[in-house]
Amino acid sequence: MQIAALVFDAITPLDIVGPIEVLARMPGAEIVIVGKARGPVRDPRTHWTLTSEASLAEVTKPDVLVVPGGAGVRPLCSDEPVLEWVRAVHRTTTWTTSVCTGSLLLGAAGLLRGLTATTHWASKDVLAQYGARYVEERVVPQGKIITSAGVSSGIDMALTLVAKMAGDDIAKGIQLSIEYDPQPPFDCGAPSKAEPAVLDRVRQSMQRASAPAR
Amino acid sequence: MQIAALVFDAITPLDIVGPIEVLARMPGAEIVIVGKARGPVRDPRTHWTLTSEASLAEVTKPDVLVVPGGAGVRPLCSDEPVLEWVRAVHRTTTWTTSVCTGSLLLGAAGLLRGLTATTHWASKDVLAQYGARYVEERVVPQGKIITSAGVSSGIDMALTLVAKMAGDDIAKGIQLSIEYDPQPPFDCGAPSKAEPAVLDRVRQSMQRASAPAR
Repeated sequence: MQIAALVFDAITPLDIVGPIEVLARMPGAEIVIVGKARGPVRDPRTHWTLTSEASLAEVTKPDVLVVPGGAGVRPLCSDEPVLEWVRAVHRTTTWTTSVCTGSLLLGAAGLLRGLTATTHWASKDVLAQYGARYVEERVVPQGKIITSAGVSSGIDMALTLVAKMAGDDIAKGIQLSIEYDPQPPFDCGAPSKAEPAVLDRVRQSMQRASAPAR
Repeated sequence: MQIAALVFDAITPLDIVGPIEVLARMPGAEIVIVGKARGPVRDPRTHWTLTSEASLAEVTKPDVLVVPGGAGVRPLCSDEPVLEWVRAVHRTTTWTTSVCTGSLLLGAAGLLRGLTATTHWASKDVLAQYGARYVEERVVPQGKIITSAGVSSGIDMALTLVAKMAGDDIAKGIQLSIEYDPQPPFDCGAPSKAEPAVLDRVRQSMQRASAPAR
């Protein structure tokens, strides 16, 4: 069972490391890190350099596709070879998934038209431009497509996916193995829960940093 | 404010990417990814290749140290140059932190003697050998040392640390920016919450895989 994790420059590392940490623990899973070309991709914000081990042309029939987000998604949304690859692999995937603004790439590829979907809350208007209906939900399955909310949601998405693919007991075991018993210090992790002043400040700083596809 | 993230072969990627994703968003934070030498480190399980941009000798006075875990921690616990580096930087850090079995390295360096601390639940007996008292808690501050539980706990640890360093409002904003409103599909993320059959199966598979320092 091949699970393809797409990487690119200015990726948000947690978007992809969260789900892959979970999915790699599923029996029979084989992870492949795929980029436009083999070699390093960089996130200047966190100083991560990740290395893709395969080019798009080398990964043609993954069973699962995971598309993460980050500032680097925006240029990909008008990059026709990337869009064509997403459309092509989606034809034969069992599951096509996204984390955060990764859903914008699925949208740009035309996969979300008429569907309910989610993305990072700060990019919900961009998602709507691709014909999807945004919902502030953590994990949104629609047929074989699963979109999930901002950054950290990929962990919840991947555990949900493992439960569908391998059963609840395997998913529970993986949740225990990554000791995922979250205890965030505040209850402000979604826009509907955050204080208005905090929400305004974060929205403004994200708009300054690069907006819509952050 | 320099934040040093230690990386090594057979790291558990989420252990370090979780906290760094949070800490990199703190105003004034400068992340440095540090390894025994500059260059790539690999986790064969998830197929990640991360690249360290600095050697131990190049990072001598970080304000914050983050030590992650993974199967690769065990050999470091008897690697005297690494242990000496941990001791040396700890003398001048503002905060010395660990995620998962990263606390075993702090223990091997002699920093946890007589302290209450935590680690991945499957390694609690190893932690005790270093003179620390294990508690099944998510984030355990003891003076300037903060240890945290398995893998995913680094996100909670880092948000707690940002609140201490930069105040609650900044921490709340970062929690919102990574949309950290966790909704795990099951309530089994800690050994005290998991069904006995699931706990036994995961414990046995971790012991087979390499045990104590997984």
